[in-house]
Amino acid sequence: MIVVMDEGATESQVQAVIDRLVEREFTVHRSTGVVHTLLGGVGPEDEVDPAEFLVMDGVKECRRIASPYKLASRHFRPGGTVVKAGAVEIGGERVVVMAGPCSVESRDQILRAAEQVARAGATVIRGGAFKPRSSPYSFQGLGEAGLVLLREAADAHGLVTVSEVMDSTQIPLLSRYADILQVGARNMQNFNLLRELGKLRQPVLLKRGIAATVEELLLSAEYILSGGNYDVILCERGIRTFESSTRNTMDLSAIPVVKKLSHLPIVADPSHGTGRRDHVGAMARAAVAAGADGLLIEVHPDPDRALSDGAQSLRPEQFEELMQQLRIIAPAVGRSV
Amino acid sequence: MIVVMDEGATESQVQAVIDRLVEREFTVHRSTGVVHTLLGGVGPEDEVDPAEFLVMDGVKECRRIASPYKLASRHFRPGGTVVKAGAVEIGGERVVVMAGPCSVESRDQILRAAEQVARAGATVIRGGAFKPRSSPYSFQGLGEAGLVLLREAADAHGLVTVSEVMDSTQIPLLSRYADILQVGARNMQNFNLLRELGKLRQPVLLKRGIAATVEELLLSAEYILSGGNYDVILCERGIRTFESSTRNTMDLSAIPVVKKLSHLPIVADPSHGTGRRDHVGAMARAAVAAGADGLLIEVHPDPDRALSDGAQSLRPEQFEELMQQLRIIAPAVGRSV
Amino acid sequence: MIVVMDEGATESQVQAVIDRLVEREFTVHRSTGVVHTLLGGVGPEDEVDPAEFLVMDGVKECRRIASPYKLASRHFRPGGTVVKAGAVEIGGERVVVMAGPCSVESRDQILRAAEQVARAGATVIRGGAFKPRSSPYSFQGLGEAGLVLLREAADAHGLVTVSEVMDSTQIPLLSRYADILQVGARNMQNFNLLRELGKLRQPVLLKRGIAATVEELLLSAEYILSGGNYDVILCERGIRTFESSTRNTMDLSAIPVVKKLSHLPIVADPSHGTGRRDHVGAMARAAVAAGADGLLIEVHPDPDRALSDGAQSLRPEQFEELMQQLRIIAPAVGRSV
Amino acid sequence: MIVVMDEGATESQVQAVIDRLVEREFTVHRSTGVVHTLLGGVGPEDEVDPAEFLVMDGVKECRRIASPYKLASRHFRPGGTVVKAGAVEIGGERVVVMAGPCSVESRDQILRAAEQVARAGATVIRGGAFKPRSSPYSFQGLGEAGLVLLREAADAHGLVTVSEVMDSTQIPLLSRYADILQVGARNMQNFNLLRELGKLRQPVLLKRGIAATVEELLLSAEYILSGGNYDVILCERGIRTFESSTRNTMDLSAIPVVKKLSHLPIVADPSHGTGRRDHVGAMARAAVAAGADGLLIEVHPDPDRALSDGAQSLRPEQFEELMQQLRIIAPAVGRSV
Repeated sequence: MIVVMDEGATESQVQAVIDRLVEREFTVHRSTGVVHTLLGGVGPEDEVDPAEFLVMDGVKECRRIASPYKLASRHFRPGGTVVKAGAVEIGGERVVVMAGPCSVESRDQILRAAEQVARAGATVIRGGAFKPRSSPYSFQGLGEAGLVLLREAADAHGLVTVSEVMDSTQIPLLSRYADILQVGARNMQNFNLLRELGKLRQPVLLKRGIAATVEELLLSAEYILSGGNYDVILCERGIRTFESSTRNTMDLSAIPVVKKLSHLPIVADPSHGTGRRDHVGAMARAAVAAGADGLLIEVHPDPDRALSDGAQSLRPEQFEELMQQLRIIAPAVGRSV
Repeated sequence: MIVVMDEGATESQVQAVIDRLVEREFTVHRSTGVVHTLLGGVGPEDEVDPAEFLVMDGVKECRRIASPYKLASRHFRPGGTVVKAGAVEIGGERVVVMAGPCSVESRDQILRAAEQVARAGATVIRGGAFKPRSSPYSFQGLGEAGLVLLREAADAHGLVTVSEVMDSTQIPLLSRYADILQVGARNMQNFNLLRELGKLRQPVLLKRGIAATVEELLLSAEYILSGGNYDVILCERGIRTFESSTRNTMDLSAIPVVKKLSHLPIVADPSHGTGRRDHVGAMARAAVAAGADGLLIEVHPDPDRALSDGAQSLRPEQFEELMQQLRIIAPAVGRSV
Repeated sequence: MIVVMDEGATESQVQAVIDRLVEREFTVHRSTGVVHTLLGGVGPEDEVDPAEFLVMDGVKECRRIASPYKLASRHFRPGGTVVKAGAVEIGGERVVVMAGPCSVESRDQILRAAEQVARAGATVIRGGAFKPRSSPYSFQGLGEAGLVLLREAADAHGLVTVSEVMDSTQIPLLSRYADILQVGARNMQNFNLLRELGKLRQPVLLKRGIAATVEELLLSAEYILSGGNYDVILCERGIRTFESSTRNTMDLSAIPVVKKLSHLPIVADPSHGTGRRDHVGAMARAAVAAGADGLLIEVHPDPDRALSDGAQSLRPEQFEELMQQLRIIAPAVGRSV
Repeated sequence: MIVVMDEGATESQVQAVIDRLVEREFTVHRSTGVVHTLLGGVGPEDEVDPAEFLVMDGVKECRRIASPYKLASRHFRPGGTVVKAGAVEIGGERVVVMAGPCSVESRDQILRAAEQVARAGATVIRGGAFKPRSSPYSFQGLGEAGLVLLREAADAHGLVTVSEVMDSTQIPLLSRYADILQVGARNMQNFNLLRELGKLRQPVLLKRGIAATVEELLLSAEYILSGGNYDVILCERGIRTFESSTRNTMDLSAIPVVKKLSHLPIVADPSHGTGRRDHVGAMARAAVAAGADGLLIEVHPDPDRALSDGAQSLRPEQFEELMQQLRIIAPAVGRSV
């Protein structure tokens, strides 16, 4: 803990802070400057809220020294983590492309989608069976029936599956059909759900909340890791800003930032990041160029007939063209697609 | 649905949009301007995503006409809703003050808190038993034991209780002890939870997510209302912005905005809104002056010893002083405290 | 300067940082913790960019200790500053209300406005002669002719004037007619303009930029103060966030924050803060309740015919009613209107 | 203008809006739906503020149909604009790399920088002589002496120059030495400056403000274009968001968005966009992959000794390596570097 005392702080105010730090079992190092006194406290930072010191008289600033996450930190595994889902490795040399429709809608739709994305080079198929929708009046997904179809389509084309879990009660069901369980942006701080996923031994794809900092994303990963499940894949999918020409603003700098702070792989979702089919390609290419370990892309056999997110779904031929471009870009960062 | 065609849109592009609107069962009104053609579609807006039209060739803009929420709209109850919780009315003439500690920590703590806030004029006591914490290593609440203590303290002083529910599985437990069930900001879009709360016949206090627009807040309320539970109290508790001198930025203009758009009562939480005890008073006064129906304020008998959020909790004497100030302000907006 | 070394920092990395600090003429205090080493540097912080240390190998974090502003800091004048403009004192016991139209449009308009706002209790009249407009095709103001009319109207009713200066070349002209020179939000970091205003001996009203932190606002004030002009009035007028139901989001917590950090008075502009007449009253009341030293409000004799910002201008009778409400609220914070 | 009437709007409220539209010289098309009435107004949108209608009784929403910018719109030049600065073409097949130090500091520094960036493949050299600094106590640039040195260095290596103009009074000076005049992010809405630059016949590089939408950026370009200067290059350099792990958040989706809305070329500045040398490479690669017409990158012969922005400046060898990577990526989007 670092406490910076205010310019006009009195000696008794400094002493009160030292006393409180000692009471909280910190060892205190004091640096008395001409203007400011600086207190460095070494101790149980996790258990103490810096704001507690911040509101004491004479305190200008108080901050933690240590990262609030431990297991998600790169120090924990300097070499990086490769998550294995079936035959697919996320975080290795190859950039993994996960593609498919927003929702599983019918047997025909998901079988066609699987065939199309597999042919173009994707190794993971996505498809939602439970959909979190802002409006209670929107299509909410096929439920278990959708998962059965997703599994069938994946198996027919040798693909790995990823699908969203909305609630801790759905974990057993999802585990049966999905190789990778996805936590949506709105659930990034659903701590009960995260804790339950920590008990699994199956990969989890954790999406960044639209207002979550990178640090908060890593703290949410920590909930899962601290339960013993180390197979967490992070996902940048756009944050909320004042700009409204795209649905969200993709924060692609989060990719190198996460790579520096954490050992966990990170993928990018340009479909939700932009909300518009015509900008998905540019952001997908940019994510790979920025060093993403993979992509999560919505592709639909017939986007104009999609029951959800049709506007941000690529047509199969657009997806194929994009894959060609990615094959050119990946070598620039020492990867392949 | 309003579709604005692009400056250079061809007649066949216009026709394609009209055809799609008709296929989606909209009646179309066309206005052909010198530069832009405008299509007004009357039909089942809830089931169609405007982005679907937005990405069609020649389309400049597409927007819904109707509000996506119905039951939460002021048109549904022009006179406004008064939510009753025990003897307390939220949304009536009196500004309701809900106060108490962040977490229930011990019998002594919560009994003292109840006595102090009741004496100062609060009619509802708050106190968390299940705490959503960013870090898995922080204090997570006393659970049911905390609820028992909260109930005892409330009953001893004739207070109504409000406490947070984190998960749909906790609803039966919370319902037994809490008069008002609180949904935290991080759960504002936990749709499974909202749907289950819609089946209750007990008031729900729904906090605005830190990145949620007012429209999204009302849509989340709609999830509860559409289940038949009309007793929803909204709560402004600060949004996330670039400013870091306060933990969040209270959006007090949300109060008059909600009053105009919805019939539901809205309260303000200046403790989470600022994160700092020294700014809570200013924001509490401002919220009442802006027309809030109530306040949710953290007050702790001994904030320096609080297990959570001590830095933003008022001391009992600060709370009393604040209540005096609120009594001066409320008449300016035709209310009392 | 505080430098926190990374968990895995080597001794030679620590030494490199110490060497660089010494080279930059800092005295270094070292605290070696179990996990992190902490370096406190006392020296010429203003001349060194913390990012310089941040990108060194083994560094986790680097921050300034001292505030980057000196003269704007409350330590410089703990008692607070009262700015005098004619007979009006901003920052004293009385909450100062500055009101009038967005732009001066005609002699009749500004004379009527002056009469109306003076009667209701305003002591300063506002009115733009040079208008910064997002579009080059919008009304750009009457220029000097507008200033002449503003002066005449003010003098007829014993009012003080405030008007916007857009460029350093306009300072001589504005100085002649305006008692207080206003710097608009878009110019908050027009440093050449600020520097020139520092040479004046006339009050300056400095609006916060829509994306400026409180610290940046105080740094911009520092530009003016460092030239010897101490009569600076700050103004909160809304920041840009993701919420779009109001034009901007008023950050009313900036009022108590500024009061704590600085000795300068701060006023609030609810007209630009909300952009909608129907929400101006709520935010004006809230600002006074939060401790603002004054208000800047757009009032137009006939808003439906205004050439700019009509939608956010109060009608004279609305302004009168608001003034009555403010007279009730001000005593709650020990002030009068 | 589109006006959507409220659900409960009365016929007389609808009529009042129609009357006002007619008075403002709009032709009105009315669509009466089951729930909402929709009014489409064709007329002089530039002169009317939609908010004027928005605050009328019974109005739910009001928006412009037409883009507020005309000359900056892609419709004005569907084929796109290629800006010529000396022998360099921005907006053509080749991705243009502009590189060099933040500030010109000395003859030796700028000559070495020019030699290094030219050798690596840059065709434009950047270097500031007038520096907008948040603090009045920071290094403010060498002024004209810096421009003389920049010109000398550029000429020695056949480079084109770009340098920042902070104020309209500096235009004549900058025009003499800089081939491209740069407008900084803080000045994006310094309308007097923009208007004066519109009178020049020299390329202008206009940086996006940190809180500016793409629409506002294009409106600022419109100020320059409407004066007759069509040689405007836009620049994405990061926007302000809640995320603090990078100085700003680069909005790379602005690149495809601008490409769709406007004919003007757009470059990206990953140095200011990230503020950290270690993330510049990733964002530079991403920008090219997203379709940027060029890059603006800070490169310093010895960043550890830079007087400004050293932390975000690449070392010469890092820049060379980056250029190699960009040569691999550009063909993926049909370009070369």
